[in-house]
Amino acid sequence: MKLASLKHGRDGRLVVVARDLKQMVDAAKIAPTMQYALDNWADVKDDLQQLSDDLNNNSVDNMEVFDEAKCSSPLPRAYQWADGSAYVNHVELVRKARGAEIPESFWTDPLMYQGGSDSFLGPKDDILMPQADGWGIDFEAEIAVITDDVSMGVNSQDADSHIKLLMLVNDVSLRGLIPGELAKGFGFFQSKPSSAFSPVCVTPDELADTWRDSKLHLPLRSTLNNEAFGEPDAGVDMTFNFSQLVSHAAKSRPLCAGTIIGSGTVSNKLDGEPGKPIKDGGVGYSCIAEIRMIETIMQGAAKTPFMQFGDTIKIEMLDTQGHSIFGSIEQKLTKS
Amino acid sequence: MKLASLKHGRDGRLVVVARDLKQMVDAAKIAPTMQYALDNWADVKDDLQQLSDDLNNNSVDNMEVFDEAKCSSPLPRAYQWADGSAYVNHVELVRKARGAEIPESFWTDPLMYQGGSDSFLGPKDDILMPQADGWGIDFEAEIAVITDDVSMGVNSQDADSHIKLLMLVNDVSLRGLIPGELAKGFGFFQSKPSSAFSPVCVTPDELADTWRDSKLHLPLRSTLNNEAFGEPDAGVDMTFNFSQLVSHAAKSRPLCAGTIIGSGTVSNKLDGEPGKPIKDGGVGYSCIAEIRMIETIMQGAAKTPFMQFGDTIKIEMLDTQGHSIFGSIEQKLTKS
Repeated sequence: MKLASLKHGRDGRLVVVARDLKQMVDAAKIAPTMQYALDNWADVKDDLQQLSDDLNNNSVDNMEVFDEAKCSSPLPRAYQWADGSAYVNHVELVRKARGAEIPESFWTDPLMYQGGSDSFLGPKDDILMPQADGWGIDFEAEIAVITDDVSMGVNSQDADSHIKLLMLVNDVSLRGLIPGELAKGFGFFQSKPSSAFSPVCVTPDELADTWRDSKLHLPLRSTLNNEAFGEPDAGVDMTFNFSQLVSHAAKSRPLCAGTIIGSGTVSNKLDGEPGKPIKDGGVGYSCIAEIRMIETIMQGAAKTPFMQFGDTIKIEMLDTQGHSIFGSIEQKLTKS
Repeated sequence: MKLASLKHGRDGRLVVVARDLKQMVDAAKIAPTMQYALDNWADVKDDLQQLSDDLNNNSVDNMEVFDEAKCSSPLPRAYQWADGSAYVNHVELVRKARGAEIPESFWTDPLMYQGGSDSFLGPKDDILMPQADGWGIDFEAEIAVITDDVSMGVNSQDADSHIKLLMLVNDVSLRGLIPGELAKGFGFFQSKPSSAFSPVCVTPDELADTWRDSKLHLPLRSTLNNEAFGEPDAGVDMTFNFSQLVSHAAKSRPLCAGTIIGSGTVSNKLDGEPGKPIKDGGVGYSCIAEIRMIETIMQGAAKTPFMQFGDTIKIEMLDTQGHSIFGSIEQKLTKS
């Protein structure tokens, strides 16, 4: 089934969305909010599934037109947002551009940071920032999962069953602030402002066999200022799958229902080498930083600028028939 | 006024607590939960204050005995927990024990990390851990504030008015996991398990003139295995006050009502030198790591062990008349 939160108060109003994203039906009688649904997943999932089946069979009375623009992020605010960096290729490129190697352990021990989860942006909300110059404003296109309650110490096999929903993320990043923040040793903090998520989140069964090995095997499409920027396959070069990321997050503490775990920036190698831009026959990139690193490695200097006020970013994923699965994140960078 | 959350479901049940912590009254008619109260602070604070006044004047009907053991943390789970490191003395000691200097910027730019906020422990809950050996389990006694909604870019003068409640924290830390996590550059993640907060949180006016300059000027008492371990003054050697910490947190994103901002481990210098144990006439320490650093600097090696299964930690703060302000955090380390 597909679920979304309409903008309403602080925590949205839960709706079930048709597979083709054209219609929706209010789910308030089953669960008023997405967090409520996740808090009570075992009790509500069958009723939500029935409503979803009825909607997809055109057999509900109170069907309404679904408008992505009226959505908040599926969880407008969450109790946890922890973002992995599972495409180690992305990390290797960052380091290579600085002339550094990555430690061997990065291939066996996931990187993960604790993100701010109290003020997510809606999928069509402007990215409001006080300045662009010097802050190096970038998008990062990623996949994320939402879990139910997970016990401390869960192993990666058992973690898989706790993945209840999937969605897309724009993990907005301030490249200009990252070096200073990381140098302090306490993580990204000020360099990671509010993230935005796709209008719709879906249960794994909606993805059929494109969801396997706890990875989503489809291209993730990023379009910057109406030009194709990236379409790397999220199932390729993902060193740690979502089960491993959930298990990693739960090593020393339990995870509350509604925990969001991200994949990190989706990134593919090409014949073992860093990828190419789409215009040169490659799959492109899921963030500007990556093309800048390639430019630095290949040409000695980055030439693609970070986002400027007025720039737009669209992130979406199509199924094997070419239909949008999650709806699209579409944001404009705007001065606050 | 003083507020607490009784253990009830996932988000507790809000009660108003008498100044002497002996009686309480249900606040459900005004606000069912602490998060609800913070989400609607402007609308509910006067009614909560009236209920508090009536309770302190013994003029409510449905008064009940207040039992700290029945409390969850004031916010059993929160949308944000960001912990500063405002007692730079503590940071300097950590580095000194490794033979390193701290960068000059640490005295002007606050350190802050994003903590997990989805699964706080209650103030009397056991700290459940799968292992003690190698993990270096430590307590950290701190002060924290809870804010209402804060706009992005708020300056430190304006930030002060957003501080609605104060409480104590035990920011449990896994010293054995910190070096590996920080070496990866993404923050503490696995080395910071669930934190616990004091049974009661209080509005700034309850603290009279011990709350000034956006600092709490009282000793914070830590008792390890029933022996006094620390009583540094939280108002002394706090390089960044809470207003500055809130402003720092909001540099690149707004903060949602119910955001918790911590002070970091409370730590005092003594005549410009690292502190002394209480038994030697000092004010002691708010974590084990600090005494181990002093031992390393003074004697060449740490001798105080980190917490072992069965160890207990008590954290509390007394007002100038010797009465507990927040109730006490009292936890036992137990094998999960």
